Amino acid sequence: MDLSHLERQLAFLREIDRLKSVVRMSPLIDRSRRENSAEHSWHLAMYALVLSEHAAAPVDVVRVVKMLLLHDIVEIDAGDAPFHDPSMQADQVERERQAAERIFSLLPDAQAAEFRGLWTEFEAAESDDAKFAKALDRFQPLLHNVATDGGTWVAPQVSEEQVFARYGPTIESGAPALWEVAAQLVREHFSDPLAGKADLDGRV
Amino acid sequence: MDLSHLERQLAFLREIDRLKSVVRMSPLIDRSRRENSAEHSWHLAMYALVLSEHAAAPVDVVRVVKMLLLHDIVEIDAGDAPFHDPSMQADQVERERQAAERIFSLLPDAQAAEFRGLWTEFEAAESDDAKFAKALDRFQPLLHNVATDGGTWVAPQVSEEQVFARYGPTIESGAPALWEVAAQLVREHFSDPLAGKADLDGRV
Repeated sequence: MDLSHLERQLAFLREIDRLKSVVRMSPLIDRSRRENSAEHSWHLAMYALVLSEHAAAPVDVVRVVKMLLLHDIVEIDAGDAPFHDPSMQADQVERERQAAERIFSLLPDAQAAEFRGLWTEFEAAESDDAKFAKALDRFQPLLHNVATDGGTWVAPQVSEEQVFARYGPTIESGAPALWEVAAQLVREHFSDPLAGKADLDGRV
Repeated sequence: MDLSHLERQLAFLREIDRLKSVVRMSPLIDRSRRENSAEHSWHLAMYALVLSEHAAAPVDVVRVVKMLLLHDIVEIDAGDAPFHDPSMQADQVERERQAAERIFSLLPDAQAAEFRGLWTEFEAAESDDAKFAKALDRFQPLLHNVATDGGTWVAPQVSEEQVFARYGPTIESGAPALWEVAAQLVREHFSDPLAGKADLDGRV
């Protein structure tokens, strides 16, 4: 056995433990705290296993699951860029590219190339697999927001029109049946007169 | 589209959000807190993607990843039974069986049957896929323990012999090359005179 080969694999697996400490804006459904990027990635992989029949085009579920398991690993270096704060997204693309280079290169060369390739494909959102993966990455936080009286939409006062504009195209492109359900949930959310009035702790 | 079919899938995906609140004994490598079962499942799925070449027999990586993503979902109802405290493990098998019945049955029937089947196969640890998945589920916490001056071995004063007895057979059976590395790390850990003397906060 080539020990340095296995040592590189273990160095990568130790390094990505840090993704558990990257905290996202999205709340858990029980509002007890915000979600971290490692458990978010687990949840999205489960979404892919359960919902693949709703993809816009036939997808390779294995590739989608792989993309979703590793899509946020770059945040270990680059941090999570809040979706509703464009000012925080400047230079994010370049930071994430450098992070992918550093972190995936911990692996043996062939695996590093495979993972970088899957991450690049996910970011490009052009293949059917990547479009579906991207749709799930938008759909899950939307479900958490409507389940928590607005979640990440409350503080920046995101409007119904902005939700449709920011989530709709990505979800509809990758999974039209999921957008149908999501759009209805968004309409119901904003028709509630208390919508967007309570923060994550339920304070109005 | 059969809406109730999709509604059942979404009900399951909302329910399993609770796995993020099930806290395990194992520490994060940076010792900042203990790991939860959702992020642990993500980490193990990454272990499977990276380390499958080291399985004792050829495995179907997709089935291994699926098993690892869903293997702890029963803990939402049954809780995490500490590995080094046998008194906490009484009735755990029956509690987990009931949990699998309740939680997987939220899904449409065919998916519920598939997931229950994968979970049962994992628990039985007889197929090559399940043996490898089980090996990873032992290997990852062992790596975290040696990386944190003993981790979960410290408080219950687990000895080197007990570590070999409790981790060795499962890891060696599913991934002999990983056990070779793990056994060496365990020997080095217990040869350190400070081993097992510091708790998770580094207090001696």
